[in-house]
Amino acid sequence: MSTPRSPLGPCCPLGPWRASFARMTSPRLPAPEDVRQAAERLRGLVRRTPVLTSRTLDGWAGCQVFLKCENFQSVGAFKFRGATNAVRSLTDAQARRGVATHSSGNHAAALALAARQRGVPAYVVMPDNAPPVKRAAVAGYGATIQGCAPTLPAREAGLREVVERTGAEVVHPYDDARVIAGQGTAALELCEEAGPLDAVLVPVGGGGLASGTCLAAALAAPGTRVFGVEPALADDAARSLETGVLQPPRPPITVADGLRTALSERTFAILRARLAGMRTVSEQDIVGAMRRVWERLKILIEPSSAVPVAALLAEPGAFGKRVGVILSGGNVDLDHLPWCR
Amino acid sequence: MSTPRSPLGPCCPLGPWRASFARMTSPRLPAPEDVRQAAERLRGLVRRTPVLTSRTLDGWAGCQVFLKCENFQSVGAFKFRGATNAVRSLTDAQARRGVATHSSGNHAAALALAARQRGVPAYVVMPDNAPPVKRAAVAGYGATIQGCAPTLPAREAGLREVVERTGAEVVHPYDDARVIAGQGTAALELCEEAGPLDAVLVPVGGGGLASGTCLAAALAAPGTRVFGVEPALADDAARSLETGVLQPPRPPITVADGLRTALSERTFAILRARLAGMRTVSEQDIVGAMRRVWERLKILIEPSSAVPVAALLAEPGAFGKRVGVILSGGNVDLDHLPWCR
Repeated sequence: MSTPRSPLGPCCPLGPWRASFARMTSPRLPAPEDVRQAAERLRGLVRRTPVLTSRTLDGWAGCQVFLKCENFQSVGAFKFRGATNAVRSLTDAQARRGVATHSSGNHAAALALAARQRGVPAYVVMPDNAPPVKRAAVAGYGATIQGCAPTLPAREAGLREVVERTGAEVVHPYDDARVIAGQGTAALELCEEAGPLDAVLVPVGGGGLASGTCLAAALAAPGTRVFGVEPALADDAARSLETGVLQPPRPPITVADGLRTALSERTFAILRARLAGMRTVSEQDIVGAMRRVWERLKILIEPSSAVPVAALLAEPGAFGKRVGVILSGGNVDLDHLPWCR
Repeated sequence: MSTPRSPLGPCCPLGPWRASFARMTSPRLPAPEDVRQAAERLRGLVRRTPVLTSRTLDGWAGCQVFLKCENFQSVGAFKFRGATNAVRSLTDAQARRGVATHSSGNHAAALALAARQRGVPAYVVMPDNAPPVKRAAVAGYGATIQGCAPTLPAREAGLREVVERTGAEVVHPYDDARVIAGQGTAALELCEEAGPLDAVLVPVGGGGLASGTCLAAALAAPGTRVFGVEPALADDAARSLETGVLQPPRPPITVADGLRTALSERTFAILRARLAGMRTVSEQDIVGAMRRVWERLKILIEPSSAVPVAALLAEPGAFGKRVGVILSGGNVDLDHLPWCR
């Protein structure tokens, strides 16, 4: 199964694409300068998360490692950057009508909190079988939750209905220029704080964080190579970049649940043009890296965050002498840790 | 069962006491000034750990909370401060003969690393049934491990033998003026960084950290009250302070395994004179507080660290408007988390 090759270069406006939000989002490709603007917009609104180092980790990785700790970000994930940039990019008239998305993950919580901080409504279409804890988190941030059947068509129909009724602005979790630019601010801070880096490793799910990281590097550290890392069980980005054709996702079974989504045409276009390369890692290596970070650094990272760490540990010294890693988030289900199964 | 009341005031030299290291350690009571000297001695040798804050935690606690994160200290616990202060207090001639202790916990690892950093030998007497992972940690820091039967008399005999053979200096985990002064440097940094605090909450096991915290507060923040917190299942310090008589420990069953030890005459004397009060917390509250810190702050703390957090959450607003907490360590067995039992 394959999808027609996208005709897009990195700086062209997007043509038609397949993503579920297609008819509701703007087809703009973000540029490096958008990351700088996002950083100004987000100042004081998102946390400037710490950059941690560890000599033990350096020893394992064969290089100096700089961990950008987005697990300490509001809502526990980098997603709050993109959501806040989207919400704060709206005109007052747009913002009054609110923002909307369909999601049951970190993006929904991030969008809800970003909207509440601006004092505008957020509408989240969520399948009726979403875990109560996730529903409670989103509701706790003040969003209006609209239930739907647990299918993609039902979610899309629910979102369309909300938009038609409220005039709310749709904010996609990654297929949105404002979101991508916002996610890039994490890497921008990392580059500012760590100094010249040979490489930055970033997990790839839908590609929003990876795309933003590429743009940030182009802006602030053109000599820094950005590598994307995926679970081997969710290697659609690696296959897409290898074949030059956007590939469909695999069945969502990897432990790195944040990376089960596939690229969009937009993020594929950015990554094709800017990524230095992709790596894939095994489930065992993901869990092992996660556990080593917990034990040695005493911080909670979710499996998705462990994915680039696993790549670093698998090839000591291979990425240069000074390597940054974006730890994307720290939202884990403590009742179902991967080593307690 | 009771022990004769100690005749000691806070500034008197100690009389005879019962602790296992009795004939091998100096009977000096440390003073606040010792903490300042320790801080100078430790500069550049121990990590200046971060002070974390969280609006969510503030909301739960009904006050502004400042968490001194000794879980990020070398070897994962405050113990490295006291051990390093002891090792660095030795003359060159003493140091060459090395340091010795009997322990299977954080203190052994801390002493081993502190000795290695000074380039001197460390001897650790460890029961033959100690967990292999703890043995490996101590050996990994370069200490010489001497096995013994898993009884207190065997440990003490093993330690005496080592000392007679090597001339090594015994460093007790808490019943040592140099160790107590070193532990106090965590609270000194907290007071410097957080500004005026109404109270500091600290876990109490053997009382070394609590004693050092009292001395640090007397030195740097005389208006700050220091409260000790224990598991209700290990409340020997609370009972000792209430009765004025040093009480024996209870059976070592609390989940807060770092707090299963009892006060010594020395730490009892300091705490009697300086502590504002004691609180005890239930096992359920300890585990609940630990889990809330993991989930919201994304940091690993061990059950002992959760003990003062539990006290804070149990009485919102009761300790003042600005309250510090010493998070003593982050060494947890990820295969046996208390909520996975």
